[in-house]
Amino acid sequence: MLNICLFGAGRIGAIHAANVAANPNAQLTCVVDVFAEAAEKLARQYGARVTTVEEALADPEINAVIIASSTDTHADLIEQAAEYGKAIFCEKPIDLDVERTRACIETVKRTGVTCLVGFNRRYDPNFSYLKKQLEDGQLGNLEMVNITSRDPSPPPAKYVQSSGGLFRDMMIHDLDMARWLLGEEPVEVYAAASCLIDPEIGQQGDVDTAMVTLKTASGKLCQITNSRRAVYGYDQRIEVLGSEGMAQANNQLENSVVVTNHDGATGAKPQHFFLERYAEAYRHELNNFIAAVNGTEPVLANENDGLMALLLAEAAVESLQSGRAVRL
Amino acid sequence: MLNICLFGAGRIGAIHAANVAANPNAQLTCVVDVFAEAAEKLARQYGARVTTVEEALADPEINAVIIASSTDTHADLIEQAAEYGKAIFCEKPIDLDVERTRACIETVKRTGVTCLVGFNRRYDPNFSYLKKQLEDGQLGNLEMVNITSRDPSPPPAKYVQSSGGLFRDMMIHDLDMARWLLGEEPVEVYAAASCLIDPEIGQQGDVDTAMVTLKTASGKLCQITNSRRAVYGYDQRIEVLGSEGMAQANNQLENSVVVTNHDGATGAKPQHFFLERYAEAYRHELNNFIAAVNGTEPVLANENDGLMALLLAEAAVESLQSGRAVRL
Amino acid sequence: MLNICLFGAGRIGAIHAANVAANPNAQLTCVVDVFAEAAEKLARQYGARVTTVEEALADPEINAVIIASSTDTHADLIEQAAEYGKAIFCEKPIDLDVERTRACIETVKRTGVTCLVGFNRRYDPNFSYLKKQLEDGQLGNLEMVNITSRDPSPPPAKYVQSSGGLFRDMMIHDLDMARWLLGEEPVEVYAAASCLIDPEIGQQGDVDTAMVTLKTASGKLCQITNSRRAVYGYDQRIEVLGSEGMAQANNQLENSVVVTNHDGATGAKPQHFFLERYAEAYRHELNNFIAAVNGTEPVLANENDGLMALLLAEAAVESLQSGRAVRL
Amino acid sequence: MLNICLFGAGRIGAIHAANVAANPNAQLTCVVDVFAEAAEKLARQYGARVTTVEEALADPEINAVIIASSTDTHADLIEQAAEYGKAIFCEKPIDLDVERTRACIETVKRTGVTCLVGFNRRYDPNFSYLKKQLEDGQLGNLEMVNITSRDPSPPPAKYVQSSGGLFRDMMIHDLDMARWLLGEEPVEVYAAASCLIDPEIGQQGDVDTAMVTLKTASGKLCQITNSRRAVYGYDQRIEVLGSEGMAQANNQLENSVVVTNHDGATGAKPQHFFLERYAEAYRHELNNFIAAVNGTEPVLANENDGLMALLLAEAAVESLQSGRAVRL
Repeated sequence: MLNICLFGAGRIGAIHAANVAANPNAQLTCVVDVFAEAAEKLARQYGARVTTVEEALADPEINAVIIASSTDTHADLIEQAAEYGKAIFCEKPIDLDVERTRACIETVKRTGVTCLVGFNRRYDPNFSYLKKQLEDGQLGNLEMVNITSRDPSPPPAKYVQSSGGLFRDMMIHDLDMARWLLGEEPVEVYAAASCLIDPEIGQQGDVDTAMVTLKTASGKLCQITNSRRAVYGYDQRIEVLGSEGMAQANNQLENSVVVTNHDGATGAKPQHFFLERYAEAYRHELNNFIAAVNGTEPVLANENDGLMALLLAEAAVESLQSGRAVRL
Repeated sequence: MLNICLFGAGRIGAIHAANVAANPNAQLTCVVDVFAEAAEKLARQYGARVTTVEEALADPEINAVIIASSTDTHADLIEQAAEYGKAIFCEKPIDLDVERTRACIETVKRTGVTCLVGFNRRYDPNFSYLKKQLEDGQLGNLEMVNITSRDPSPPPAKYVQSSGGLFRDMMIHDLDMARWLLGEEPVEVYAAASCLIDPEIGQQGDVDTAMVTLKTASGKLCQITNSRRAVYGYDQRIEVLGSEGMAQANNQLENSVVVTNHDGATGAKPQHFFLERYAEAYRHELNNFIAAVNGTEPVLANENDGLMALLLAEAAVESLQSGRAVRL
Repeated sequence: MLNICLFGAGRIGAIHAANVAANPNAQLTCVVDVFAEAAEKLARQYGARVTTVEEALADPEINAVIIASSTDTHADLIEQAAEYGKAIFCEKPIDLDVERTRACIETVKRTGVTCLVGFNRRYDPNFSYLKKQLEDGQLGNLEMVNITSRDPSPPPAKYVQSSGGLFRDMMIHDLDMARWLLGEEPVEVYAAASCLIDPEIGQQGDVDTAMVTLKTASGKLCQITNSRRAVYGYDQRIEVLGSEGMAQANNQLENSVVVTNHDGATGAKPQHFFLERYAEAYRHELNNFIAAVNGTEPVLANENDGLMALLLAEAAVESLQSGRAVRL
Repeated sequence: MLNICLFGAGRIGAIHAANVAANPNAQLTCVVDVFAEAAEKLARQYGARVTTVEEALADPEINAVIIASSTDTHADLIEQAAEYGKAIFCEKPIDLDVERTRACIETVKRTGVTCLVGFNRRYDPNFSYLKKQLEDGQLGNLEMVNITSRDPSPPPAKYVQSSGGLFRDMMIHDLDMARWLLGEEPVEVYAAASCLIDPEIGQQGDVDTAMVTLKTASGKLCQITNSRRAVYGYDQRIEVLGSEGMAQANNQLENSVVVTNHDGATGAKPQHFFLERYAEAYRHELNNFIAAVNGTEPVLANENDGLMALLLAEAAVESLQSGRAVRL
């Protein structure tokens, strides 16, 4: 039975806590949060105790940590947890700074702890199934990937400021999916982007609408389409073309009902946002982490994947500024 | 906090136990099963105790019971639980015999206990949404209902024998959906049926393929299509036509991926069977029961609904034997 | 080069005229209509002459006739044309009276002329493809057929009077499809029906909403759903279930665009009515007729099919009146 | 009645000839082709005469010409026809060379003749409907366009050589659609491309797999995805995102049947290639030309549109060679 400490009792922390509770091989032992009330509420619900970072890491009974606290705490917590030999599940990103990320990875590698970085989409059953088609050769040789990723509504401009911007905060998930599906590192990155939705986002120096093109050494191509606003909800689709066919992972809808009348045939919208759409992905992700700690599975996304996606985001930013494709 | 005793620790009992655990207003207190091992396993998982029917009913701490034991025990357990004033969640049917069912209902009515009969489909989010369209007047006046309900594969012929046959065991769910959607009692029932799938089912005097037509006093029509076998999985669809439009609740699929190649565009099959398809329905059903016991919601299907669906199934059997529409 | 005379220069006659013109093996030679103007317009457009029934039939250059005049002229024209040895393409029905129909068929058989009865749906590419799946064994043994057939709006009550009623006028097409797909004659017919849409239709003694169940000797089952009104357009769908799978022929839509917004994802309505939906079917039907006259194909629907569908419609009427399934 | 001369009696010429015949305001008067046999066959079918370019242009009875001959003859024929005052329907491109195209346009403008350039996709009912949604404001402010365009199989490498390459030959249609939908000229073009399908195409210095990004002055973005091979057929889809919603024009399928079995639910492939998919577009295009000559409609795509799309294709070629976004 794995004893897990959760850092961060917010919305995503609560999801991981529930998934730990549902896993027969793990239990939530303690919770840490700067907001005592949030920590206590979650601890009470799952029979865990509230504690501090120091106490939790020093406790030899604790085998693993889940880092779901604010982004600026990730790298420090990873390093400390690694030094104490705890297995680490860390929400993305490791850090918004490449050098800080590299240093952090060094520590993880040196200490040899298990480290899962939260690229939750790799665990989505639809995307997993699509990837399986590729790996099983059902689609022949992969030639093209098209990723559509749109949020239902833009975040507050204030959030944008601390987020690292659209490429490092939002598209990083798509860049990771691109790497994962292409099965080969992109060597060329081009970005075009605009601020069309919220002028305040532009005033923060960020964009809200973006298209990125990736190319691998063997010539595979990938397009990513991002928007901070899709009035119809969270739009998360992937399409791949191979020499033997195409596979498309479409949105999951709110329900299966279609109403047909004078206006046409109207079906449901996509599930609203990531908590609904990726509920199952979060469950698989947590289970993969626990299995990895128990040595029965490798993690599906590790610290190195965290770095590589960040490097692609950095290249996209550079391309946007220079108007050139950036070579890696 | 509601203390619940579960009678029956089988497959469906385990689902209800998990849903009780996930509900913040209830806890699984004890489990009863003739198979001690099953009872103990479930009890252990949710911190409950194993007990007997007598002990559980006599325990004043127990507020409610879930009856998920074999069909022939339902009526007795309902009556006993009602006499002890426990709220009752009972899997359908109350009993396969109409008179026994009526007697049972009498007891429930006299004791005034809450009684939910497990017509789980009323809780399916897709069917609920479809019904809401009807109630909100989005479809105008209802004229027609078409219900398709097919199992992935026929049960063992042995099961058929004790099940009451296709109409009382399988179509009863569809007959309940028909009543629920029509918003008016059927007054005429016609059944046509065959044994096309498994000759052994025919030797048991049952059918495996059936079509039933219902008509209400105001002239609304309903067709139900049943098959014991759909090689593509559990086929659960409803279509309604009104003066202002049509609504269709389609199947829920295993995933959202479509592969297009030389053979066409292939999407996933429907979710395999009721445990997958109605997982969410079971959760809503349990929550409705707990809310009903707490007095904040009425139950969506009660003992009387159990009887009415059985009467329609009896009429279908009679129609099949006589070759006439049966008037109720 | 086949010389064809068209009886009836109305809407459906014009369609057949255009299809004759597009067929390289035939030409429209003359047109007959009680409305001289309509006949002249159509004749002019296709370089044909206006003539009379007598003149046309007596003309040895005329090889074939298309009967697209009013229903009450069909039987007489068929008999006259047959006596003159002309090949016959006749819109359904041959006649609304069974005995008259039988007499007419006798003449056709005796004279040995080619006779195609206009069950246009057999020529629809979607339904043809579905039938091919059945014939190729892709679906295993056929067990069930479900036919949905709804008109966009009810005809004037006045039309209903002379049409023979819903079963003989509208459902006859579906009864023919049922026979064609079942591959076996129905031996039992049950009908339930109501007047829910237009009270005037009821005053004419007719219904506007109907459900019919058919059963064959081997136990195959078929349900037909008819409504005189679907506000979303012409609803023409067929679903078949076999031991190895299901095939569904869905509606053809007005376009392929889906708009997704706050209200959901809205696609186009079905093509509005038979002229749009069955445009391609009419073309294939005409081509089949010409090929049949030239001896290179059999007709897909002949005079006997016309009679058999009428007998099923009669049985449905009888069932509705008696409340019993009618055995054939 | 418009008298039309057709230059080029090949596959696409035959389509235009049939559409002229079906239009009540025009007739095919003469046909010109270097292959006498092809010209004669088409002329015979539609009651036209075979003639020469010179004779046709000199004939004052001829009002309009359709140029469906080989690409290298387009510019000369346009100029000659314009000098004779004939209305011109010319298949794209005007010429593969920008300067030659500009000179040609000068002549058209000077002579004031009607000139339609064959961007057939503007006439596709699906794309028209999508554009109408944009123009009617149903989607709010346009932000993004995604165009997918894939051929069923690559052309012979020999064809590639004379075609001008993927961007000038194939993507030019998509570049035109982009301009048409964006409603604003692109000012930035980036291209990434590979040769993944047929090495011989690479040996000709061309690519078979390409992704292009366009940006307009106001910041609207567009991605185009091209492949010379989609084993499932002709893939022609457009998706637009606006501030109030998304519209997607999906493929037209070969039929509406879905077969569901052990393998999933399989629907038809897209219509195979342009002759099938754009049959209706060609009809609308021809009708628009005739209406334009008669002064009742403007042409939907004129000589200037031919030039602008070519300039975008040139920019894409330059971007591919330089690795930079090209500014226009």
